[in-house]
Amino acid sequence: MEHRLTEKQQKKYCYSIGPYYDPVLSISPGDKVIVDTVDAFEGKIIDSTMKASDVVQLPFVNPLNGPIFVNGAEIGDTLIVHVESIKPRGPQPRGTTCLQKYFGALSPFSRSLSEPFPEIVKKLNITEDGVCWNQNLVLPYEPFIGTIGTSPRIYSIDSLTPDPHGGNMDLPDIAPGATLYLPVRVDGALLFLGDCHACQGDGELCGVAVEFPSETIVRIDLIKQQLIQWPYLETNDFIMGIGSGRPLEDAVKIAYDVLIQLMIDRYSYDKWDAYLLVSQAGRIRVGNVVDPKYTVGASILKRYLSF
Amino acid sequence: MEHRLTEKQQKKYCYSIGPYYDPVLSISPGDKVIVDTVDAFEGKIIDSTMKASDVVQLPFVNPLNGPIFVNGAEIGDTLIVHVESIKPRGPQPRGTTCLQKYFGALSPFSRSLSEPFPEIVKKLNITEDGVCWNQNLVLPYEPFIGTIGTSPRIYSIDSLTPDPHGGNMDLPDIAPGATLYLPVRVDGALLFLGDCHACQGDGELCGVAVEFPSETIVRIDLIKQQLIQWPYLETNDFIMGIGSGRPLEDAVKIAYDVLIQLMIDRYSYDKWDAYLLVSQAGRIRVGNVVDPKYTVGASILKRYLSF
Amino acid sequence: MEHRLTEKQQKKYCYSIGPYYDPVLSISPGDKVIVDTVDAFEGKIIDSTMKASDVVQLPFVNPLNGPIFVNGAEIGDTLIVHVESIKPRGPQPRGTTCLQKYFGALSPFSRSLSEPFPEIVKKLNITEDGVCWNQNLVLPYEPFIGTIGTSPRIYSIDSLTPDPHGGNMDLPDIAPGATLYLPVRVDGALLFLGDCHACQGDGELCGVAVEFPSETIVRIDLIKQQLIQWPYLETNDFIMGIGSGRPLEDAVKIAYDVLIQLMIDRYSYDKWDAYLLVSQAGRIRVGNVVDPKYTVGASILKRYLSF
Amino acid sequence: MEHRLTEKQQKKYCYSIGPYYDPVLSISPGDKVIVDTVDAFEGKIIDSTMKASDVVQLPFVNPLNGPIFVNGAEIGDTLIVHVESIKPRGPQPRGTTCLQKYFGALSPFSRSLSEPFPEIVKKLNITEDGVCWNQNLVLPYEPFIGTIGTSPRIYSIDSLTPDPHGGNMDLPDIAPGATLYLPVRVDGALLFLGDCHACQGDGELCGVAVEFPSETIVRIDLIKQQLIQWPYLETNDFIMGIGSGRPLEDAVKIAYDVLIQLMIDRYSYDKWDAYLLVSQAGRIRVGNVVDPKYTVGASILKRYLSF
Repeated sequence: MEHRLTEKQQKKYCYSIGPYYDPVLSISPGDKVIVDTVDAFEGKIIDSTMKASDVVQLPFVNPLNGPIFVNGAEIGDTLIVHVESIKPRGPQPRGTTCLQKYFGALSPFSRSLSEPFPEIVKKLNITEDGVCWNQNLVLPYEPFIGTIGTSPRIYSIDSLTPDPHGGNMDLPDIAPGATLYLPVRVDGALLFLGDCHACQGDGELCGVAVEFPSETIVRIDLIKQQLIQWPYLETNDFIMGIGSGRPLEDAVKIAYDVLIQLMIDRYSYDKWDAYLLVSQAGRIRVGNVVDPKYTVGASILKRYLSF
Repeated sequence: MEHRLTEKQQKKYCYSIGPYYDPVLSISPGDKVIVDTVDAFEGKIIDSTMKASDVVQLPFVNPLNGPIFVNGAEIGDTLIVHVESIKPRGPQPRGTTCLQKYFGALSPFSRSLSEPFPEIVKKLNITEDGVCWNQNLVLPYEPFIGTIGTSPRIYSIDSLTPDPHGGNMDLPDIAPGATLYLPVRVDGALLFLGDCHACQGDGELCGVAVEFPSETIVRIDLIKQQLIQWPYLETNDFIMGIGSGRPLEDAVKIAYDVLIQLMIDRYSYDKWDAYLLVSQAGRIRVGNVVDPKYTVGASILKRYLSF
Repeated sequence: MEHRLTEKQQKKYCYSIGPYYDPVLSISPGDKVIVDTVDAFEGKIIDSTMKASDVVQLPFVNPLNGPIFVNGAEIGDTLIVHVESIKPRGPQPRGTTCLQKYFGALSPFSRSLSEPFPEIVKKLNITEDGVCWNQNLVLPYEPFIGTIGTSPRIYSIDSLTPDPHGGNMDLPDIAPGATLYLPVRVDGALLFLGDCHACQGDGELCGVAVEFPSETIVRIDLIKQQLIQWPYLETNDFIMGIGSGRPLEDAVKIAYDVLIQLMIDRYSYDKWDAYLLVSQAGRIRVGNVVDPKYTVGASILKRYLSF
Repeated sequence: MEHRLTEKQQKKYCYSIGPYYDPVLSISPGDKVIVDTVDAFEGKIIDSTMKASDVVQLPFVNPLNGPIFVNGAEIGDTLIVHVESIKPRGPQPRGTTCLQKYFGALSPFSRSLSEPFPEIVKKLNITEDGVCWNQNLVLPYEPFIGTIGTSPRIYSIDSLTPDPHGGNMDLPDIAPGATLYLPVRVDGALLFLGDCHACQGDGELCGVAVEFPSETIVRIDLIKQQLIQWPYLETNDFIMGIGSGRPLEDAVKIAYDVLIQLMIDRYSYDKWDAYLLVSQAGRIRVGNVVDPKYTVGASILKRYLSF
């Protein structure tokens, strides 16, 4: 079955991920959902003369669609999200990136001593053919879901933080063609998603990607009674453990630890063999180095594992 | 006015700090509250043959009293908590400390590769005269509030994490005689507290202090229309900025940055003078190096500032 | 002119990078050097029944060829190293990887409390066609120079540490086809190199790559009077700033900061434009997360810059 | 026997710690040495109109006395340094502190994007009665040795970095009355010391303490055939493990790990008992959070251990 979650149906977007929002939609495993996401600034940065700090303010940032209630999902299951497509929508220039005063990896740390960075805004035309950076440069359109997660049991986590529930991972691999696995911590799973990026550098250095409103299509499935501690991801080519933490090496370690456990559980690897092999053939993708926790994906090609 | 918050009145303890719990008590600025806290394991570790992992499980750990609604407190105010006294209560041995499988600063990181640490439990007799470590050693009774915070606007933060709202700071300076300043993010402030420690080493290395049930007395006050970003603390002798973050140097930097801003705002310091002086006369207390964020207090003697 | 630096000519390998070794070879800008490197264990791990800790001991690890004196190189110049080819040499099984007791990203931290990891050794056949992992799996032969650097002015840095002088970066991009730029801090530059890897996972998780003896050909050039603070690298496709530090986010920040400065200096970018663009189009390669400092390369495609 | 190491005898100060300097003095275990240290800027910042960057430049910073050759010291021994006294010397104002462009914990990180901090210099009168901060404030004279270490086997470590050899720990506990234990890695031990501070805040936030020239008296002893991995320290009251690393939590973990091992080796503690006890009674001193590695001391009162 196919569902549509328009802006109108969503009504109010969510700024945290937790069990305290009423579901906006109920679906069943196997269903497809077409989601109209808004950008991380809720569309309020209309032109390059505006400043982010004038139009959006904590905690009302990074709006998410959802929660989507998945029938039959129970605590201890694993939710499967197939990312089918992400298309741009809305009037041009649809894309927004910007610098913020004290946010971003190279920003000054001290608010008492340092001057803030300038609040530069850059608006961008986006089509499926590319992100128009300027008249000479078109960056590839490589869209992905910046924030996606399932509800924790009793916490309500801000939409800026990635953690075992998923959340604001800003990991470019959560893209069309990928399958994401998330823990189910409450009945119905309660899926939230949004914050799509048309493209992003590794690490999302300045703290803002090319933010844009999208029509994102996901197909949902369920594995019963499989408890997972951290999200992981799969494409045709590779499997990837996902870790979020600080400092960045902790995210790397978690991601590889998840990957090793997957090799043990799904591919019957001996643990030391798995450790040795990822040390020689693992690949790291740095999602973000700017959010309250940093996110890393550690992957290995499936053809190295399957025999 | 004086209020009492007994176990019976508290009924169910809280495992997160947020706006989704109904207040258990309403008070006014100037009021005193006598709070019966339970220990971090909710009293379930009765003897040293038990294991923490058998009796308590995430997310139902580190139970807190509250929320306490403070009449007149509005978003943008500062809540003042005077810690008046902390007394042990309950049958002996009242104190509990223990090792946990993968928690604590020296625990192995990898769950896929490393064996866990042994789950050793140590029960301890506690009086106001001391913490009886063994027949030869009595540690000083130096009680403090491990977890105390006000509700975020829309988030509900797990009771294990310290952050700008306060939370699980595990900072030994939040002790009788100290005055703690916390941000008000929701009407009524919604104060939570618990997790008292009879003593604790700097950093709370193994992740568990000498946990115990207490009768804690706090007196509450309010500063109207003073927005603060991070908690700070004051005693007769010093003022202390409090920072929580990872890695630990970030907590140090935040704490000192808060302290410098206090010197600018309250003592009319030039910012560079403040930076120079704390570099020569500041003191660091490491609260915890084990929680999801680490907590540090950076202080300076008030007699260095007041002229 | 072409030089050859055989094991015999090298005689004693170097275990640190500094000005206290006599040059083993003098060359001129434009010259080519064929270097016979030995593996990180100096060839002492002959079969899989051996343990690293039995045959190699600090500080006599990670042996390097050199120093090579470059005529005309003076303090404040930039040394250019074109990596032309890296071929395996020596009897099979030429390759070695292994686990070490307390080294590697997932190893236990505490030597007082945790048992060490087992010292597993894996010997591997290596040809230019691949690294034979086992009878079912051949990993691609993707060789690179693990350790390469120029002498600091007065320090002698252990061969395990990467820093502004280059050193043990373990960065897979220092491969055939790449051009590496290193600072000249002493007259003659004094180039050291070795520690070639036949392949390596991102981060070199267990702390050891597929170590092997190689015939490595480099061509050396010089830029006069161009002082650089950190190494950088160039291929046909991209330029890459290289940063080493701890925690890992510091290495990321340094690498991107170097890249931004290159965009300013070489491509006349405005600094904020450069920051915005790498935030959307930069790529991170994690070299190592195991050495005394971690190494990261931050790159951008040259075709995004050149117009 | 008593030796004197005057500026004249020292002739050239050392800017790194390694085996490549000729000894300036030979002594025997039990001997006392009176050392005339110069300040970290080698006395070149004479008044507050000067800038550090004008008069001192890397790598010629933080000058050290030594090396002192200790007769009979062999690889694998432990060198004992009793700090007997530290007295100020030289014309007033003897003390110097300052801000530097990009150095210090709150300085901006990015050299490509951020403006540097102002290079403010503050000259100070220092006597054994106090450090005269301004006409209203005298800080206590609490002198200690900022940099002290023994030579590594083959490395020559810059005088700004602390590590297992000791080095630039900037740890205020290395003060009169303390006994410091250092590893012997070369014959004669080769002791270097200098960089005395008249006082310093925890963490040395801005990267510079109250630097001053001193007459420092140390008495040297030797423990034969006791190999140590990290320095430790002892006073009448406590023993302290010392760890240096990044991020700061690594320094904390190393320091506590060293302390636990001391409790096992010297006080026959069971390892888990030691871990439990330091978790409740350990104290952390943060030396520096600004140097290439951060330094932490983790201590416990000896009266908790001795029965």
